[in-house]
Amino acid sequence: MPPVDTAAFLRDLYELRRIGAFRTGVHRPTYSPEDMESRRWLVAKLTECGLDAAIDGIGNVYGRHRGQGPHLLAGSHIESQNEAGWLDGALGVVAGLALARAGLPVDVCAFADEEGHFNIGFPGSRSIIGELGEDDIDRATNRTDGTPMRDALRAAGLEGLPRRQLEPGRHKGYFEMHIEQGTQLEAAGLQIGVVTGIVAIWQWRIVVEGQQDHAGGTTMAERRDAGLSAIRLLAAIDAEFPRICGQRTTWTTGRIRLDPGAPNIIPGRAEVLFQFRDVSVPVLERLEAGLRALVQEANRRERCTVTLEPVSKAIPALCDPAMMQALSDAAAELAPAAWQTMPSGAGHDAQVIARRMPAAMLFVPSIGGISHHWSEDTKDADLTLGMQVLHRAAQRFLAS
Amino acid sequence: MPPVDTAAFLRDLYELRRIGAFRTGVHRPTYSPEDMESRRWLVAKLTECGLDAAIDGIGNVYGRHRGQGPHLLAGSHIESQNEAGWLDGALGVVAGLALARAGLPVDVCAFADEEGHFNIGFPGSRSIIGELGEDDIDRATNRTDGTPMRDALRAAGLEGLPRRQLEPGRHKGYFEMHIEQGTQLEAAGLQIGVVTGIVAIWQWRIVVEGQQDHAGGTTMAERRDAGLSAIRLLAAIDAEFPRICGQRTTWTTGRIRLDPGAPNIIPGRAEVLFQFRDVSVPVLERLEAGLRALVQEANRRERCTVTLEPVSKAIPALCDPAMMQALSDAAAELAPAAWQTMPSGAGHDAQVIARRMPAAMLFVPSIGGISHHWSEDTKDADLTLGMQVLHRAAQRFLAS
Repeated sequence: MPPVDTAAFLRDLYELRRIGAFRTGVHRPTYSPEDMESRRWLVAKLTECGLDAAIDGIGNVYGRHRGQGPHLLAGSHIESQNEAGWLDGALGVVAGLALARAGLPVDVCAFADEEGHFNIGFPGSRSIIGELGEDDIDRATNRTDGTPMRDALRAAGLEGLPRRQLEPGRHKGYFEMHIEQGTQLEAAGLQIGVVTGIVAIWQWRIVVEGQQDHAGGTTMAERRDAGLSAIRLLAAIDAEFPRICGQRTTWTTGRIRLDPGAPNIIPGRAEVLFQFRDVSVPVLERLEAGLRALVQEANRRERCTVTLEPVSKAIPALCDPAMMQALSDAAAELAPAAWQTMPSGAGHDAQVIARRMPAAMLFVPSIGGISHHWSEDTKDADLTLGMQVLHRAAQRFLAS
Repeated sequence: MPPVDTAAFLRDLYELRRIGAFRTGVHRPTYSPEDMESRRWLVAKLTECGLDAAIDGIGNVYGRHRGQGPHLLAGSHIESQNEAGWLDGALGVVAGLALARAGLPVDVCAFADEEGHFNIGFPGSRSIIGELGEDDIDRATNRTDGTPMRDALRAAGLEGLPRRQLEPGRHKGYFEMHIEQGTQLEAAGLQIGVVTGIVAIWQWRIVVEGQQDHAGGTTMAERRDAGLSAIRLLAAIDAEFPRICGQRTTWTTGRIRLDPGAPNIIPGRAEVLFQFRDVSVPVLERLEAGLRALVQEANRRERCTVTLEPVSKAIPALCDPAMMQALSDAAAELAPAAWQTMPSGAGHDAQVIARRMPAAMLFVPSIGGISHHWSEDTKDADLTLGMQVLHRAAQRFLAS
């Protein structure tokens, strides 16, 4: 079996970068002419590497290996955010292409609209696992201009095409290579991240009810200041969460709204949007218990009433241990002391595919952590090393 | 000299209440037909009591005593907030009328637009002390409907009338009786408040600059969360201010804005509107020093930059000690154990008049603390007692 051709891999990446080029990045919104051009480019490349390739009715590009299994699945997405980076998504697709060129028994897929230009989550990967209904497509519209997804599919020439689904039992696992979109690798001077899982977000709305009053006529002792009670609760979270969090937990207060929000009025109501993220359900449950205890304590101590409303509670997608082991062993061999395990803080198609087969992800550094912006970039050396680790890991996992 | 006629005083109040009646309150916005009717009513009443009374070019009603001095000035305002209470302002004007009827050497004034329907502060009392220019009037517009003040004055028939100013040296002092607009007297079971001063408001904008980042990809250790730094500072204020405040200090966070205010984004900027109020300049200065120390400490400890911008720093209007003494002696005589000294948390014309002569205020309880609402009310017994205390205090002060 030939080694992976990293020169061809980089050449493909740079070729794809020219489609929909915007400054140093690309502009390829889902089903746009540029996006469709990139999908056709990918079909041609996959065909060149000996795969049976086509675009299906949701826009997924699928290249099917002709030989014997066991097979792998590899890929990511090929559309971009508006005026965004050249590597987000494209990297994983071109890495899959490189695995195919290297002769591995791999099917390669570019899942449509991972970037969410339309208002349904992950239509491409959900379609391929059979969890996207025709009615979902009927309802979906473009977040930017309101175009119905049906109209966009028709304009892209995809109307009426069948939607391909995974062949049960065909794949041993799914690999997705991606840029980190953060600064952890860069800050630690590392080149490879072996992803442990994709974090789940548990979102909350904290509502504090007090008594609106004039700031002049109401003494401190008489007040039921909803804003102050919210501040005390958030300060308590700031003190308590470091004691109960996991190693990679994050928690964020994204919004605080005081009603009525006037300088001379004691707020009668405060609303806080709060979330935490982790890959471990026990950790998430411990954080929820801690949050509930703090709210209970606030209701004991404060003159205001605090209520905790769950907004959403997702389930984390854990990466497959055997695939992680293959990635770790390959990283230890090819990038000794330059790799670590880490969770993915953002969502990826891998979390959807993981519902049908073992899945794993590999991160390479993002320069300055920048992503979703045309200046997004990664050093060629890091791209190349990541590709080599992925190739070795795929070999190891197939042999395992 | 006759005693004060409290029956006539209550009769006048109830008569005035019928002008612009709204439910149990009144609707007399400045220069409205109802407001002008109330001003004409007052002119007639003052004339009846032997004063030379007229409406001037800003709408001030002035009743001038014909006899020898030393003279007092007494009054308040006669317009109301929209669909508001019957006593706010009216009480002080009708109390002045009662002093005149009792034969005291008193000029009575209803200062125009203390309620601020137009966007310049205290036009009536500022006009009478000579601190309102024609250009101020030219620029002023109605906050509700944008009507220029000039148009409103013309429609009210006041265009071209001269604006009366105080005669230097004529007045020994200014008395203003008012409802408390809070619950301190009621909660303490008291009937009379001798006002020590009108608090000054020192307002601040606290701006925290951090780094906007995605809540998913950025570890807790990497963050520069402007919202979190703001919460910590506000929690520190909550801990520190009770140690350095005065007995009646109030402090309020009326607004917190996190930018961009999205659940999945670490705030890059936070803006807080904060104010404190006190009647004592040394206390206000101590609070400012405390606030600056907390901001300095935040800049030492936090990863964000905190800046403190003064929005406004007013000067408190202290009540005249001799007038307060006269009010306290009268209260001790007529309402033993049912009175206290207290600051006014809201602004009043007295703070403007205090720039030209000694001034003092007397509070009576507000039922439930309600004000600026049609349900505003005070018991007749409290109104009567307040009137008697004011009358006795005016006699005492004139004799002092």
